[in-house]
Amino acid sequence: MSRPSAYTHLQSLFQRLHGYRHLLAMAHWDQASMMPVGSMEARANAIAELESLCHESLTAPQTGDWMAEAAQESLDEDARANLREMHRQWQQASVLPADLLRAKTLAGARCEHAWRQQRPANDWQGFAANLREVVNISRQEAQLRAEAQGCSPYQALMNLYEPGMTTERIDSLFNDMKTWLPELITTVVARQRENTLIQPQGPFAPVAQETLGREIMGILGFDFERGRLDISTHPFCGGVPEDVRITTRYSDSDFTQSLMGIIHETGHARYEQNLPRPLLGQPVAEARSMGVHESQSLFFEMQLGRHPAFLTSILPKIHQHLGERAGMDATNLQRLYRQVEPGLIRVDADEVTYPCHVILRYEIERDLIEGRLEVDDLPEVWNDKMQSYLGLSTVGDYRNGCMQDIHWTDGAFGYFPSYTLGALIAAQLAASIQSQLGDLGSLIENGRLHEVFGWLNSNIWSQGSRYPTDELLERATGSTLDARFFHQHLRQRYLQG
Amino acid sequence: MSRPSAYTHLQSLFQRLHGYRHLLAMAHWDQASMMPVGSMEARANAIAELESLCHESLTAPQTGDWMAEAAQESLDEDARANLREMHRQWQQASVLPADLLRAKTLAGARCEHAWRQQRPANDWQGFAANLREVVNISRQEAQLRAEAQGCSPYQALMNLYEPGMTTERIDSLFNDMKTWLPELITTVVARQRENTLIQPQGPFAPVAQETLGREIMGILGFDFERGRLDISTHPFCGGVPEDVRITTRYSDSDFTQSLMGIIHETGHARYEQNLPRPLLGQPVAEARSMGVHESQSLFFEMQLGRHPAFLTSILPKIHQHLGERAGMDATNLQRLYRQVEPGLIRVDADEVTYPCHVILRYEIERDLIEGRLEVDDLPEVWNDKMQSYLGLSTVGDYRNGCMQDIHWTDGAFGYFPSYTLGALIAAQLAASIQSQLGDLGSLIENGRLHEVFGWLNSNIWSQGSRYPTDELLERATGSTLDARFFHQHLRQRYLQG
Repeated sequence: MSRPSAYTHLQSLFQRLHGYRHLLAMAHWDQASMMPVGSMEARANAIAELESLCHESLTAPQTGDWMAEAAQESLDEDARANLREMHRQWQQASVLPADLLRAKTLAGARCEHAWRQQRPANDWQGFAANLREVVNISRQEAQLRAEAQGCSPYQALMNLYEPGMTTERIDSLFNDMKTWLPELITTVVARQRENTLIQPQGPFAPVAQETLGREIMGILGFDFERGRLDISTHPFCGGVPEDVRITTRYSDSDFTQSLMGIIHETGHARYEQNLPRPLLGQPVAEARSMGVHESQSLFFEMQLGRHPAFLTSILPKIHQHLGERAGMDATNLQRLYRQVEPGLIRVDADEVTYPCHVILRYEIERDLIEGRLEVDDLPEVWNDKMQSYLGLSTVGDYRNGCMQDIHWTDGAFGYFPSYTLGALIAAQLAASIQSQLGDLGSLIENGRLHEVFGWLNSNIWSQGSRYPTDELLERATGSTLDARFFHQHLRQRYLQG
Repeated sequence: MSRPSAYTHLQSLFQRLHGYRHLLAMAHWDQASMMPVGSMEARANAIAELESLCHESLTAPQTGDWMAEAAQESLDEDARANLREMHRQWQQASVLPADLLRAKTLAGARCEHAWRQQRPANDWQGFAANLREVVNISRQEAQLRAEAQGCSPYQALMNLYEPGMTTERIDSLFNDMKTWLPELITTVVARQRENTLIQPQGPFAPVAQETLGREIMGILGFDFERGRLDISTHPFCGGVPEDVRITTRYSDSDFTQSLMGIIHETGHARYEQNLPRPLLGQPVAEARSMGVHESQSLFFEMQLGRHPAFLTSILPKIHQHLGERAGMDATNLQRLYRQVEPGLIRVDADEVTYPCHVILRYEIERDLIEGRLEVDDLPEVWNDKMQSYLGLSTVGDYRNGCMQDIHWTDGAFGYFPSYTLGALIAAQLAASIQSQLGDLGSLIENGRLHEVFGWLNSNIWSQGSRYPTDELLERATGSTLDARFFHQHLRQRYLQG
């Protein structure tokens, strides 16, 4: 018997990590959806123990040796892609000294914890004190990652979520959007002023909303034998590919948010549930990037869920579960889900104004990480950009301004661009699907949604991390990331018909 | 700075294990109460990975060195008790070679999994084939443990659940019970024949049963900030001391089982929730033994929950949540919960016939492990003993005979005595409480249950594993384990009044 190759050793290591991460993911899901308040500290300690074990296993000296050896071994294409992704995870973990990682975790936990009280209290000074520490550590982290990757500090952080993406490219994408988006928003808002809009008349029983949500998840192909729907304050898609846990929250007075939230999370869920099953446990089987992940939730929500034909098709179910007053008619439902209105809050934004929220955050966090802005500058620069992009003021309103997001509290700088990359990719995929399978409206009306899911499965879901994002997109759609499809989608949905 | 003592190293090790075990406990709870069917395999793999890591950490050569060194260090009383419990866990883990442990896990999983189909199908031959393999491995395990401890093979297994208990003592306890129990059963059954008994008239909505159950848990002091109540096929108390998860199942037609089941699990839960908090994470803070654990659930169920005064006190709540037809009157409710009837199924047995089920299993599993019985002998010897102890036949009825329990399927030989030890201890504690605080009925009627819980907390719960069982009992009640209190309890409840 020949001795196991270095690659085989690495496979075993990552399989083991997959098991540990399964338990961590379930503990996180439980914490957000089930856990009683009093067990917070014990849970945090347990998670920290296993996370630090994962970090130790990944960064053990032996792992580096195996990486070097495996690079010399003869491997097939999947294995080579797997090794590339292993190397990426290993490099990302190794570059951070354990004490900086610990400091980051502590400062992030402290800042996030306090933020949960400080935000409702509009306590900017209190928040800023903690955030300074988080920014300070994130700058050190960015510097170390930048040196290791040979790129700018902000890009090094962004690459944690979006491997291969450059700040130059984001700049160019976002600067282009800034040339047409503000005007588009003004036009759409003016156009929509003529519409009469009837708001949903509650109360809508949460249990009825849940039944409706589950039926829609079924239509969208969610596999309930490998996943669940539950309730949490902040909706998310968690768990593991073998057992995907999505959550929502129900408002008594308005069913439209939880319904679209469920459709959004179902997009994330189908990606996870259809990652390449025989390779699960290996990095090559993981989702490509956060941008690609968001592209699936936004494909489900924006391209599909808000499509007039889809809304018309589910209207009978809305009536059945929530009563006649809930659904109004198809026209009103379509208008509700197509309403554009500049607002202060990112998570409540429509798909037309959403990119403004992202561009604003991107420009600020990039400059913050690279030292061109300080924490104390945030309120002013936030207000300036809100004025300039959406015509709104946040003077003195920190809680609905620069304190609104959780991301910065625990140092997740570099994540925000993923949302808009996801929207761009979703539009590009939708265009490709329509050119290959036909108009999305007809596909919905003719019960051919399974063909759409089949296309996504072949081209995106089952590909995992085999290819870098651009290659994945090129194989799927014939071109690398191209923002024109998103612009076209917005014009078509909001300026025509 | 002086170098950390070996004892300090051990403390850190066990604190880390406590974190891992937290995640394992939550994964087990989730598996039984939340997990969708399709994720079984991924979950089993994840649990196996972390369990084997726990085993490796505990049995690393360094751990043995620390044990030896720490024994020479100067330690206070708690630390010395902690070291004794650390040593016990370490010795129990180290004595089993990794390949035997793996073989046991695999054979147990296979046998248990198949049993879930084989039991309803009454497929004895199929089950016996798997059980032979489990018994074979358990005999090897028992032999290794026996050599290490210098005791008989069966006792070595029993000591996993009941440290310090000897087979001689169990023999003597059980043989004594066999001299009076069959006659007591006959007398009670004859006496009760005169009673008119009205069975509950359902249906009882599960949601109403749950509300009732939660209120009773509240009365019994369950801390909902550190625990939950959910549903599972097989009710249990799981989770961790900081976050105790109990489960039940609801029958539409009969609320009495789930209600008493909840009271039983609440007894387990209060023990866990009140283990010595400052020491949590260290072995000395864990529950003393399975017998002591069962004594708490049986104190709550048998001594307290089925006490006529307690049933009378909760009757208004039963009426409130389940309607008038549910509660009948106090006399009928008391009779329902005091009904004695020899039956085939252990988990459905009343407190008078229950010990017969345990004695039967103890005698069989002891002889099976020590080679005086083979798997093929089980149906016959089971039937003989059922005839002799309870006057019932199980010829050809394997599913309600020797195939009814889950314990043997994964090799948990040695556990069964804990149930009856628990019943004996519960009666002994109740006697002591009544001699110190007054009659239990009066305590219930006068709203003094908190004094009972206070007594249990001081004497049992907060003591964790500081003392061996006999010393714990002696400190609490003035005498070591004494079966006369149980006999007295049965005579008083079932032959008087």
